[in-house]
Amino acid sequence: MSTTTKINVTGMSCGHCVTSVTNEVRKLDGVTGVDVDLAAGTVHITSDTPLDATNVNAAIDEAGYEVTS
Amino acid sequence: MSTTTKINVTGMSCGHCVTSVTNEVRKLDGVTGVDVDLAAGTVHITSDTPLDATNVNAAIDEAGYEVTS
Repeated sequence: MSTTTKINVTGMSCGHCVTSVTNEVRKLDGVTGVDVDLAAGTVHITSDTPLDATNVNAAIDEAGYEVTS
Repeated sequence: MSTTTKINVTGMSCGHCVTSVTNEVRKLDGVTGVDVDLAAGTVHITSDTPLDATNVNAAIDEAGYEVTS
């Protein structure tokens, strides 16, 4: 089974930002895919299990950005 | 003797961009310092000798950006 989580992230402005976010989110348990839409400011995360919002927020924070919703 | 060169660079949008530009320009012969002003879109380069514009442009291009003036 696969879960898809969509979050909005503020502050991503270039390809380097996309790489940073992707690398941090990819480290989370169960994550199978990360798709960042820079223009839309969204991150789609696919995972084997539902994600814990706290962990997702921590990963985005670690990358240097902030989840807005 | 020290020379200071100021260039305008377009497309730099975040701290990662600053790092990329700084790292590439720093590789140029004679360069002793690189100071990127993200908000202003400027790069101040200090060097032992006057810099060749072609080499500076190539370094900025290598970082993924463009010198506008």
